[in-house]
Order: sequence, then structure tokens, then C-alpha cells
Amino acid sequence: VPDLTAEAARRLAEQVLTGLDVPAAEAAVQAAALVEADLRGHPSHGLIRLPRLVERIRNKVIVAGAGLDLVWRTGSAVTVDGRRGLGPVVAHRVLDAVLPRVRETGIVVAAIRRANHLGILAPYVERVAREGLVAIATTTSEALVHPWNGRTAQVGTNPLAVGVPTGGEPFVLDMATGLVSMGRILEYASRGAALPEGWALDADGEPTTDPVAAERGSIAPFGGPKGYALGLALELLVATLTGTALGTDVHGTLDGHQEAGKGDVFIVLDPAVLGGDGAGVDRYLAQVRADGSPERPVLVPGDRARQVRAERLRTGITVPESLWARLSVLLDGDPA
Amino acid sequence: VPDLTAEAARRLAEQVLTGLDVPAAEAAVQAAALVEADLRGHPSHGLIRLPRLVERIRNKVIVAGAGLDLVWRTGSAVTVDGRRGLGPVVAHRVLDAVLPRVRETGIVVAAIRRANHLGILAPYVERVAREGLVAIATTTSEALVHPWNGRTAQVGTNPLAVGVPTGGEPFVLDMATGLVSMGRILEYASRGAALPEGWALDADGEPTTDPVAAERGSIAPFGGPKGYALGLALELLVATLTGTALGTDVHGTLDGHQEAGKGDVFIVLDPAVLGGDGAGVDRYLAQVRADGSPERPVLVPGDRARQVRAERLRTGITVPESLWARLSVLLDGDPA
Repeated sequence: VPDLTAEAARRLAEQVLTGLDVPAAEAAVQAAALVEADLRGHPSHGLIRLPRLVERIRNKVIVAGAGLDLVWRTGSAVTVDGRRGLGPVVAHRVLDAVLPRVRETGIVVAAIRRANHLGILAPYVERVAREGLVAIATTTSEALVHPWNGRTAQVGTNPLAVGVPTGGEPFVLDMATGLVSMGRILEYASRGAALPEGWALDADGEPTTDPVAAERGSIAPFGGPKGYALGLALELLVATLTGTALGTDVHGTLDGHQEAGKGDVFIVLDPAVLGGDGAGVDRYLAQVRADGSPERPVLVPGDRARQVRAERLRTGITVPESLWARLSVLLDGDPA
Repeated sequence: VPDLTAEAARRLAEQVLTGLDVPAAEAAVQAAALVEADLRGHPSHGLIRLPRLVERIRNKVIVAGAGLDLVWRTGSAVTVDGRRGLGPVVAHRVLDAVLPRVRETGIVVAAIRRANHLGILAPYVERVAREGLVAIATTTSEALVHPWNGRTAQVGTNPLAVGVPTGGEPFVLDMATGLVSMGRILEYASRGAALPEGWALDADGEPTTDPVAAERGSIAPFGGPKGYALGLALELLVATLTGTALGTDVHGTLDGHQEAGKGDVFIVLDPAVLGGDGAGVDRYLAQVRADGSPERPVLVPGDRARQVRAERLRTGITVPESLWARLSVLLDGDPA
């Protein structure tokens, strides 16, 4: 299989989606979100998710083209019912509504429920930061992470994303609170390789280096008890603000047939309203980067994704043979 | 030296502060903040800080009784100039103003500058959560943490605190983004004990297990590259929103003579405005706790502090001999 250009990958995903009667504009947004993940070096959130999206659309737990209920509860708080819509479509429409408003109010929170998987959060907080605004975004997921000292998957991989404007490219943090992703575990399984110790527990709650056992078990939180505590805080924060499910009650991101029960929270702030001017940020980040060496470079969140993205825009996206076979079936309209 | 009851410790601190013409009400708030840290098992933020506070008051970089400039920029965004006031006094006054407002707006951000050290953040987010509200609090500090792959202290220990209401005691996360605190390093130094590997670098950026060398060097971020990224995100978030100093330009928390250059950000949200009801939180937390065993208990953030607090309310607070000697001098009015 030859590498796909980003443009070809987007067209392919759009074609698959419009073939399922997803409106063209929504297909474009969803396709761009998938390809953006591949471009930035997060293939677990890239084209590989397309077959599952197709299954979910066929099972009507994703309903494209249904719009969304967006209700301003106050001048600075909006609740969103995503009506089972495509995650990236809902999220970008929410930002369309939030970004003009935050320049008046200084801060806006959007509490989103019933939207499908948003994909990687980086592009959303980056979009916000490019407007000179600060973004905090978080979302829940299926329980895959065990509590510190625990034995079973109780907490989502709950990512936290932060975007901050700079004089150059925005600062973009997007980190899951699991030590590794389930995608990484599956990749070890596909290679028949043993996991490093400390990554995972098996279904009985015992430490394992067998990726197949880990897949039925749970992933460690990153950073020991602190990372566990952070992931749990995000779980409660999102569920409490959005009224969505918690822990093992969360479904609909990884499976093909259940409604998305997770929640998403965006908090957007305007530094100009608060009197902050971002002075010194560029000089500071230069100083932080200068603390590294050619052998041990110090990176700022967003650096690596930008490097990988620039490279893949040149060289293209590698599509594994097995994925290509599944995508070909989808394109030919064969009802899998 | 006998252990002090919490009440005696508070009276002692109040007496020291009022002896320096701190108004009685402000002395009570500052004293309670210090003693609360000792009670919760964080002695590095407890009475041990009192001699430095005294020095800072004498040097007029803490100015008690000056009030604060609190300006509502919009209905949901307030900027605060702490006018060199005592940190806990400023923070609680900000919450006094914010808490009634957030029930109307759903979310409020407070961007605070020129307040002195707030102490541990847990009591602030706990106060908010007891009102049925959600709190996110963060603050910068002197640069003590090295970047991932870096060699020198460039990032603050930047704590993140999250408070979420439950049916019982609030969920209270309060974690620094350094792997350990400088207080812990100093404690190893005082015992002449070697540090575990991976905790710290010396002043030349080389790994060290010598706590004295670490004191002049830097502390590792918690959780490897992710913890570094989180600490850096908080550094930028706080500085950008409050217009305060960054990295090695931050002073005035640990020294005796420089103005406090760090910033503090509180974000408070009302789940009721957003339609979240917190249903399921208690059941979920019970399920998370049940994932542990008597030998390996699973704790929820806030559990340990509550256990330690209950115990110390019974047994009292241990005051090291050297601290007692310094406090005695302060009480006798001897100008040290």
C-alpha cells in the first residue's frame, strides 16, 4: 500500500462518509479531524477509527446532519446536546458560538453531552489559541485506567488539553491521563511484543507484560498517584458539569452500537479582558527550549506534533495493509 | 517540645502576626491557613513558614490591612490586585465576592496578582465545593522544576487544585506538578539521607542523590514528560491570564525581601446552572474505593488529608525544636 497524501486521505474519508448520507460539510469536518490525528502522529485517533464510525452511523448511534441544541444558560455558560452528532462537527459548532461571545464575557464554559468522539483535542485548543484566546478542554472516555493501588479499569483515559497563544505557533498541550493508550497496547499485541513492566494489569488485577491480557485488563495511570488523582478529578468535573456518565457506565466511544455517554467540557478565556497581555511568553519559551541540548532536546507541548505534521505533509500517511483492506470494502459500498 | 493543639498553634501564629500590627481578622485567616497545612500533613506549608512571613512583613513586601483592588471586568471575570496583602486573606475575600456571583453566571474566573503566598490550595477549593460548586485553582511559584530533558530549574512547582461537591465530604485534589517538594528535599538534607534516584539534578544539571546539591539544583517534574507539560501549561496559563512573571522571574514566595511576582487563577462553576446534578458521583466514588483492598487501599483525593487532620486534631501538631526556638523569639518580640 502506498502512503496517502493528507489530501487523498481526507477525500477517502469524505467519500466513505458521504456514501452513508453524511452531509458533505460534516463529512469534511470529520475527515479532517481523523487525518489531522494521523498527521500529528496519533494514528490511534486517525483513519483507523473510520470503520467504527461507519458501523456507528449504520447503527444510528451517530446521526449526522441533525444539528445540535445549544442553549445559553447565562451570558457565559452554554449547554449543548449534541443529538448523537459527529464529535468534531459538534465541537467546532460550539467553538463557532463561543469564540465571539468570550470577547465580551472574558470566560465561557461549554458543557457538551451526547456528542460522539471528538478525536484528539489538540486541534480545538489550537484553533482557540490562534484567536489569541486561552482554552482548557477535557473529556471523559470508557473506563480503561485502574486507580492507584486498584485492580480494575475504573477511570477514563480522560485527556486534558490546554491552548495558550504565543507570538508564534500556539502552545498546545493534549495529554491523556493514562500512562499509555489502549492503541499502544494493541500495537504491541499486533507485533507479539511484551509490554514494559508497570504499564498494565490483567483482568484479575495482576501486573502483566502480555498485551493481549492487558487489553482485557486495565492501563496504569501516568505519574503514579498524582496522575490517577488528576484523571479522577477530570472524570468528576466533566460528569458533574455535563450530567453525563461516570467510569464503567461510559460507553459509545470504542464500541459500534451504544450511544456516546461521555461528556466534554470546554472553558475558553480572553486574556485581553483580564488585562493579561502574554508579554514575556515567547522569551520564556525560548529560555525553556534552550535548557536542552542537541542530544536531549527540551520540547514545548505542540513542538513534536508540528514536526511530525510537517514531515507527513511531505511524505504522506502510512496506511497499514489491514486498514486499507477494510477501507477498500467501505469505498466499494460493500455492506461489510 | 510538647505537641501543640490546633487551637494553641493558631493562637500562637495570631499573636506573632498581631504583634506586627496585622489586623486581628487578617491574622486569624493567615494563622488558620498555616495551621490547616500542618493539620493536613503538609508541614512545609505550615507554621514553619511563619518566620519568613514575619521577615516579609518587616520588609514591607507583605502589607497587611491594605485591602484589595477587585474589579469586575465583566459579569463573570474579575481581576484582583492583592496590594501585597496576605495570600489567604486575599484569596478568601476573592471567594467572598465570587461565590454569590457564580450562581447567576454559571462560571467566574478570578485572575489575581500581587497577593502573597496562598499556602496549600486545598482549603479554597474545599470551601467552594462545600457550597455545591466546582473549583479549579492554580498558581505559579518560583522556578524549582527542570523541564523534561532539561538541566536547570525553569518551571514552578505550579500546583493544580480541583474541588467537586459530593453527597458527603467534597472531592479535593491539590497536587504540585513537581515530583517532590523542595520541603521534602530539605527534610532529607536535615537527616543527612540520600535522595532516591531520579528526584533531582545538581546545579550543573547532573543527576544527584545529594539533597544539599539538589537544593541548589532542580527537582524533576512528576510523571515524566506529561507532568512537565502540565506544569508548563499552568505556568503559561496563569501568567497569560494575570499578567504576572514567568519561570526564573518569579520571586517573593520563598525569599524574605522581594515582592510576590506570581499569579493565582480561580475558576468557579455552578453545576446547577449547567444542568449537571452530580447524580452518580457518590456511587461512583464508592465503586472506585472498593477497587482497593485493606493492604492496598484505593484513596480518593482528600481522603488522606482528612484522615491525618482528624488524627492531629486529637494528638496535636508536632513542632520541631528549631522552629520552636525561632517562634519563641518572635513571641518575645525580640527583633530576631
